[in-house]
Amino acid sequence: MRDAFTDELESINQSLIEMTNLVASAMARATTALLDADLQLAENVISGDETVDLLRNEIEERAFDVMARQAPVATDLRMMVTTLRIVADLERMGDLALHVAKVARRRYPGRAVPPELRGTLLEMGQVAQRIVAKAGSVIASRDTELAKQLEADDDAMDGLHRTLFHVLIEKPWPHGMEATIDITLCGRYYERYADHAVSVARRVIYLVTGEITTS
Amino acid sequence: MRDAFTDELESINQSLIEMTNLVASAMARATTALLDADLQLAENVISGDETVDLLRNEIEERAFDVMARQAPVATDLRMMVTTLRIVADLERMGDLALHVAKVARRRYPGRAVPPELRGTLLEMGQVAQRIVAKAGSVIASRDTELAKQLEADDDAMDGLHRTLFHVLIEKPWPHGMEATIDITLCGRYYERYADHAVSVARRVIYLVTGEITTS
Repeated sequence: MRDAFTDELESINQSLIEMTNLVASAMARATTALLDADLQLAENVISGDETVDLLRNEIEERAFDVMARQAPVATDLRMMVTTLRIVADLERMGDLALHVAKVARRRYPGRAVPPELRGTLLEMGQVAQRIVAKAGSVIASRDTELAKQLEADDDAMDGLHRTLFHVLIEKPWPHGMEATIDITLCGRYYERYADHAVSVARRVIYLVTGEITTS
Repeated sequence: MRDAFTDELESINQSLIEMTNLVASAMARATTALLDADLQLAENVISGDETVDLLRNEIEERAFDVMARQAPVATDLRMMVTTLRIVADLERMGDLALHVAKVARRRYPGRAVPPELRGTLLEMGQVAQRIVAKAGSVIASRDTELAKQLEADDDAMDGLHRTLFHVLIEKPWPHGMEATIDITLCGRYYERYADHAVSVARRVIYLVTGEITTS
C-alpha cells in the first residue's frame, strides 16, 4: 500500500510540475502579446487557459481518489491537502496570465503599454518567469533554500510595481485614461502572479519542515 | 463516531459563518472609510484582518484534526476539503476589504473617491454586503436556490465595475492620476470580493448536489 501511495504522490507531483510549466509559458506569451500588441498570441493564451483548468480538475480528482482509497493521516494527509492548495495557486496564476492577454486583446491594434513603461513591464515579465521557474524547481526538488529565494524575487516584483506607479504619477501623462487603467491592472496581475508563486514555494516548505512561513 | 463527526462539522460550519460575518463587517467598514475618508475606521479594518487570519488557521487546524482522527471518505472527505476551500475564499475576502481600507488610509486626509464616482462605489459596497450576507445564509442553510441568486448579484457588481471605467473614460477627468489608480484598484477589489462570495456559494452547491457550477 505504502509504495502505491508514494507512486501516486510522485505522479501527482509530476502533473504539478507540468501545470507550473503551462502557467509559466502562458505568462511569457501574455507578456509578449502585451508588449508587441500580438493579437494571435493573446488569443492563444486566452484559449489555452482551458488546458490549465482541465489539468487542475484532473489533479484534484486524482488527489481525492488517493485520499478516499488510502485514507492518509498526519503528514500524508497534509501533503494531499497542500497539493490541492498548490493546484489552486497555479490555476490562479493561469488566470492572471489570461487577464494580461485580455488587456493586450482589448487594445489591439494599439499597444496597451506606452514606450516609457515598456522596460518596466518587460522586467516584470522577466521576474515572473524567474519566480515561476523557481516555483517549479521547488516543487520538483523540495529545496527549502531555493524556496527562500522566491521571496527576493517577489521583493523585486514589488519594487517594479512601485516603479510603475511612480512613472504614472511623477510627470504629466500624455497617454490617456485607458492606458492608466491598463497599466494599473497589469501591474496588479504581475504582482499577484508573483505572490501566488511565493505561496506555492511556502506550501512546499511547509510540507518539508512543517513550518508556516509568512513575511 | 458518526455523531461526533456530525457535531464537529456543525461546529466548523458555525465558525465559517462567524468568519463570513467578520469579512462582511470588514468590507462594510472599509467602504465607509473609503467614502468618508475615515482614518480611524480604515486603521480598524487593517488591524482587524489579523482576527480573520487567526480564525482561518483555527478552522483549518480543526478540519485537519477531524480528517486525521476520522479518516472520512467519499462525501465526508469532499466536505472537509470543500470547507478548507471556503475558508481560503473568506480569508481572501478579508484581504480585499483590507486593501480597500489601505487605499482610504493612503489618501487621508484627502478622499480617494471623487464626487462623481461616490454613488457607484457606494453601490458596489452595498452589492458586496448583499452578496456576502447571502453567502453566509447559504453556508448556514445549504439553500441551493439562494446560492443561485448570488450569480445575479455578481452580475450587478460586474455592471457597476464597467460603469466605473465608463465614468473614468467618457469625460475629461480633473482628478489626476492617483485618483484614477485608486478607483481602478478599488473597482477590482470589490469585483474580486464578489467573485469569492460566488465561489463560496458554488462550493456549497457542490457539497449539496455534487455538481460543479461555473458560468
